[in-house]
Formats: sequence, structure tokens, C-alpha cells
Amino acid sequence: MRGEAAVREDHGDAKVDRREAILVAAAQLIARRGVRGLRVEEVATEAGVSPPLLYYHFASRSGLIRAALEHASEHAPSTALRRSPAGKDGFEAVKAALLAELDDDRAVRENAVVWGEVSASAVFEPALRDDVRRVSEEWCRTVSDGIGRGVQDGSIRLESDPDDVAQILITLVDGLCTRWLSGAIERERARELLGGAIERILR
Amino acid sequence: MRGEAAVREDHGDAKVDRREAILVAAAQLIARRGVRGLRVEEVATEAGVSPPLLYYHFASRSGLIRAALEHASEHAPSTALRRSPAGKDGFEAVKAALLAELDDDRAVRENAVVWGEVSASAVFEPALRDDVRRVSEEWCRTVSDGIGRGVQDGSIRLESDPDDVAQILITLVDGLCTRWLSGAIERERARELLGGAIERILR
Repeated sequence: MRGEAAVREDHGDAKVDRREAILVAAAQLIARRGVRGLRVEEVATEAGVSPPLLYYHFASRSGLIRAALEHASEHAPSTALRRSPAGKDGFEAVKAALLAELDDDRAVRENAVVWGEVSASAVFEPALRDDVRRVSEEWCRTVSDGIGRGVQDGSIRLESDPDDVAQILITLVDGLCTRWLSGAIERERARELLGGAIERILR
Repeated sequence: MRGEAAVREDHGDAKVDRREAILVAAAQLIARRGVRGLRVEEVATEAGVSPPLLYYHFASRSGLIRAALEHASEHAPSTALRRSPAGKDGFEAVKAALLAELDDDRAVRENAVVWGEVSASAVFEPALRDDVRRVSEEWCRTVSDGIGRGVQDGSIRLESDPDDVAQILITLVDGLCTRWLSGAIERERARELLGGAIERILR
């Protein structure tokens, strides 16, 4: 019955908008208190929808968390590599895209916290692991394709497999995000280290 | 009064043993359910001590978590670099020490989870950040000193600052541990990537 009532409440563009509003609210709440402090009712209130509507869209708390990871992954700054970047060679495009993951911007920080939180939760919730693996593999492929374009236009010189190099680079981005967010190093220092590593690894 | 009773209960070697038992129990429980699922009473039960005794040693839940991070840091496999490794050149010692952080061993895994969990919690608990920064800087210094020995004995060739290189390497180890523990990649793949990166960065 919950589903039916929700369908009547929600259709077409409004449905897409409400789904998006719920995911934005979930990201904000995760960024504030973490995945493990996330209460579905609070997400619904923050998004201005009823809890049944939230359950209609995401089925369960776990479904909501998986969708929040997917949303963070789709909105990550380095997805810029999926579009043809104007006026940049392959190397510049990869470097700009990865450094943007450490931008001083509220949405970027929220995205980074969601990603880190869902990964950290997956250590204790095996149900999340397939999703973590899938979005991680997508990210790796995006960066690997970007590296491939740099090799083709001559701006990147590789001594090893592009997939290995892409894995190393996204692992560095993740690790530096964690260090920045946990206070181990400053964001500017993280960007400087990442920029230097990208230069050394891709040139 | 709690403190006094505890002191009467606990002194000398027994005191050291009990402190250690509490920290081991805390690590096991954190590895099982995370920092945010950690209940002080449960740690006391697991360690076979009374809650007042636990509070006598660590003052608060937050004090216990900080001590667990310190303990994980002191017992991390790469602290092997603080002792002179017999029969290994500097490069081999650094490589072995960092790869050991991805060993298939219960204590190593527990250590990695504690480290990852306390870092992830520090995003939401500013009180933990100074400790996270301090143990992270100690780890970086240990690896940087190891790299320095490799430069001296000619087994490591560096193109950049040893502290920067040490930061990049420990960030990679952390990032690969997170990917392994969250199921994003297999442990063996993480070791292979780390081994390859160490070769390329230090040779």
C-alpha cells in the first residue's frame, strides 16, 4: 500500500526531482554525521518528502546508501574526463580532473565524505561491497580512458599498464581525501603531493 | 572514588598487562563492528576487567579510542623499519615493511581496520584529529628515515624530497588497505599494485 500511495504522489519530472532531492539531502546528512549516524526519517524531513515516498524510491536504508554512493560517483569532479575536454591535452585533462577531487568546494567535500563513508561502512556491511567495487571500477575505467587519450596525443608517457596506473592514481586521490578530511594533512598539501605524483607517474 | 578503587585493584606488571588486554579487546571489537559501534562496557567485558578500571586507564571513550589508534600505530608492520633490519638493503627493507601492511594475518587486518576507522571517525570528531595527525606524521618519519638509509646505501634513487615520497607511499598503503577491506579490490591485487609502485617510485 505504501508503494501505491507513493506512486500517486509522485510521477514524471516531479518523481525525478524528488529522487534527486532525497539523494542531495542524504549526502548532506552523511557529510554532517556519517553513514552510521544516518536516519532515514531525517533524510525524508530534510528532503521535504514523506518516509513512505523515500522507501518507494529506495526500498530500504541500504538501498538509499547505495544510491547515495552511485550519486556521489556520478557527480565526482573526475567524471569531467567522460566528456571531451576543450583545449586540454590528455595529460592536462587527467591532472585537472584528479586535482578537482581535492577542490575547496562544499559539494566536492560532501561527495568525498560520502565516498569515504560508504567505503568505510562496507568493511562491516558486506551488502555494500559489490556497489563499492562497481563504482570504483567505473572510476578506474574513466581515468584509464583519460590516460589512453594522453598516450595517443603524446602528452603522457607510460612505463606500465594504464589500468595499473589508473588504480594507483585513484587510490592516491582516495587516500589523500581521507588524510585531508581526517585532519592528517592540509588540503593544499594534499593537492601539492597529488600534483607532483601525477607529474612523476605520467611524464 | 572510582579511580581509588581501581588503583587498589591494579598495580605494577598487572597494570601494564590489563592496559594491554583492554587495548587488544578494543581493537578486536573495532575490527568487528567499527569505532562507531564500540561500547566501553563491552570492551571491559571482553578484556575481563571492570568498567571503572577501564575508565581509570583511559578516562573516557574518546581516550580509549585515541589509545587504540596509538596502539595500532605502535604495532603496525612497518614499524619494523625503526629497528635495523638484518641482511636487507634500504630499498628491500622499505618494500618489505610497506607490503607487510597488506599481509594476510588477523592482527594485521585488525590493525588496518582500527587505523581506517579512527581516521574515518576523525572526519566527524575534531577531538581525534590531533592524534590522527601525530601518528600519521610519525609513520611518515619512519618511512622517510627508511628511504634515507636506502639513499645512503645506494639502493634507492630519488628524484624528489624523501618526505614527499614517504607521504605518497603511506597514502598509497592506506588507500590500498581501504580498497582491500571495503571489497573494492582483492588483497593480492593491492599487494601487486603496491609492489609495482614502490619499484617505480624508489628506483
